[in-house]
Amino acid sequence: MAHINLPEGLPGIRGPMAFRRDTAKHLNDLAEVLLRSENSLTRGERELIATYVSYLNDCFFCQNVHGGLAQHYYQCDTQFIDAVKADMQSAPVSQKMKALLSIAESVQKGGKQVTPIQIETAKLLGATEREIHDTVLIAAAFCMFNRYVDGLNTWAPADREFYINRAKTREEEGYSNYNPYD
Amino acid sequence: MAHINLPEGLPGIRGPMAFRRDTAKHLNDLAEVLLRSENSLTRGERELIATYVSYLNDCFFCQNVHGGLAQHYYQCDTQFIDAVKADMQSAPVSQKMKALLSIAESVQKGGKQVTPIQIETAKLLGATEREIHDTVLIAAAFCMFNRYVDGLNTWAPADREFYINRAKTREEEGYSNYNPYD
Repeated sequence: MAHINLPEGLPGIRGPMAFRRDTAKHLNDLAEVLLRSENSLTRGERELIATYVSYLNDCFFCQNVHGGLAQHYYQCDTQFIDAVKADMQSAPVSQKMKALLSIAESVQKGGKQVTPIQIETAKLLGATEREIHDTVLIAAAFCMFNRYVDGLNTWAPADREFYINRAKTREEEGYSNYNPYD
Repeated sequence: MAHINLPEGLPGIRGPMAFRRDTAKHLNDLAEVLLRSENSLTRGERELIATYVSYLNDCFFCQNVHGGLAQHYYQCDTQFIDAVKADMQSAPVSQKMKALLSIAESVQKGGKQVTPIQIETAKLLGATEREIHDTVLIAAAFCMFNRYVDGLNTWAPADREFYINRAKTREEEGYSNYNPYD
């Protein structure tokens, strides 16, 4: 049971977002511009960073919503997502993505955990300043979203297929037009 | 030196906000509605929650910006802010605020750290569902802001008076109208 009386039947972040729509609007607008707007990082890459941070924060709902979206954009199977979670360094992603995921992992622990060597490595592997900025902010933002979802003890469907099946619809609706009651 | 080339001379979050204005807009709109809009928690109480979480995350810039604002709204001295940081339970704040600060402290560690007993205690001490929601979201949001500021290794003025002296102007300008170059 959630810690406060949220509208019934809405999984994960949808409950708190329906509870307070004015904060939800800005959270969704932030997600829209960070994860979907024009960027040299693909939507799949950005959703994968979000998935990885949500996994590190042990947030079941977020890691599956965004894992489903990453899988959808990458056109891959669940094994790919699981490989990134299990051992990102040996997963089949680019060297640049490994460097960015490593920065995201440090941000998840705390901002001061990011080292100059991690930044230098990412740059040597082709990451732009903007990509590094966006990686830090995506990782930081999911440290917020994950805490919002779990800090209120929301419920989430246990079946991973639920999230995978909804990913295409989620792509079509985007974040800004997100209606928690849909 | 910051991890990426940020516009020069801008302290703390102002650098990254000037670097990417479209994400800054949504971050500021979120801060505006969470920390300043109509609420049964005073602006001082909300800034104090932000200060406490930023202190726990060891973010020098945020704990001083928001500590300066909390001090301004409470019309108190720095000893009050320091007392909350040092031992919130014995600080001169209401029992309800102690319960909310305790929830914020758990959120800072991780969403799942919040316990039903903490929620029940807050409710018994008069906290509304909305106040609990807002406490969780403020704490979660500062886990983002703090990581954004420190994950990019921004610089911050070392003198605490700098922040205290600017608090009145910060109140007047608000967050939505925030110009990183001001």
